[in-house]
Amino acid sequence: MGRWEPDSRGRLRKAAMELYAERGFEATTVAEIADRAGVTERTFFRQFADKREVLFAGGEGLAGAIAAAIAAAPSGASPLDAATAGVEAADGYFPERTYARRRQTIIDANPDLLERELIKLASLARSIARALRDRGVDAATATLIAEVALGLFRVAFERWIAEGETRGFGELARESVAQLRELAAPGDRHQAPAHRT
Amino acid sequence: MGRWEPDSRGRLRKAAMELYAERGFEATTVAEIADRAGVTERTFFRQFADKREVLFAGGEGLAGAIAAAIAAAPSGASPLDAATAGVEAADGYFPERTYARRRQTIIDANPDLLERELIKLASLARSIARALRDRGVDAATATLIAEVALGLFRVAFERWIAEGETRGFGELARESVAQLRELAAPGDRHQAPAHRT
Repeated sequence: MGRWEPDSRGRLRKAAMELYAERGFEATTVAEIADRAGVTERTFFRQFADKREVLFAGGEGLAGAIAAAIAAAPSGASPLDAATAGVEAADGYFPERTYARRRQTIIDANPDLLERELIKLASLARSIARALRDRGVDAATATLIAEVALGLFRVAFERWIAEGETRGFGELARESVAQLRELAAPGDRHQAPAHRT
Repeated sequence: MGRWEPDSRGRLRKAAMELYAERGFEATTVAEIADRAGVTERTFFRQFADKREVLFAGGEGLAGAIAAAIAAAPSGASPLDAATAGVEAADGYFPERTYARRRQTIIDANPDLLERELIKLASLARSIARALRDRGVDAATATLIAEVALGLFRVAFERWIAEGETRGFGELARESVAQLRELAAPGDRHQAPAHRT
């Protein structure tokens, strides 16, 4: 192993994903991941705290990008519009779609990983609420919109990784928000037509 | 200990909450809970699988009540209205407010409990989506509204256990939905007035 290990991080991630898919997350060891990536275990631990972290590294960047986009939304933007701009900004922080699909399959199959993912998503909602409060949105509205934005994020992500989907995450996020607006409209088109005024 | 142990479940729950608050969840043992409740450990384990379960028992009843209320919503109700009826129905399944506050404080202080709570909430969203699909709501809309409903549920619950709050959960749930409708309205009142047509 040379002193320089170009893209050892990328190779470790790829090796880990292959092994998790082949043998399951639980049965895979760090030694095996390092071996397949052609690096030492020490190199693994310079890049990732543990084998779970291979799947979650980069999450802070995502939360930061969302918060930055909320902060950068036009000053006249409504809380929901600002939050939507944040969710859309997640686009640039996702891995390649095929990788994201495989990652989700691994997470969904492992309760520990699923718990970790839910913890990260809950913390994402808190950071969205904080970014909204920083824009002057009152605390109650910020919490409400942040929870809703997290729901939109999850729905858009689920659609994005669906088999056969080709549209970008940003477009799917905008579509989800537009659907919510329609579904929440007072003169709801989905309602029975009786007693309309 | 007599053969009949009237309300041993309630006494165990009360004893557990006291001990979790006094010593912390981690430091409390089942033996101590049983002892304070004046029952045997065997009686504890007839009621609860473990000391975490004391805090989460009854969750299936909550999910069932929400799903039943969604199913019972008028056939003309929109997906959001049906989901709202479900969230409101949670009211009858909550413990007394002071208990709910103490419970939340204990959960928030313990990462394991928080993970378990998030898992239960995620499963609640799935059961709301299922109940909506059973009404004929398409899958994409059902998932979107279920995620949003979960957000409304969390917000209403957070408001309900806030110090000094006296309004009922159902009222707070309706208030949160009304706020969402306003915030999601196309002619958003929170938007800057420029360029309105």
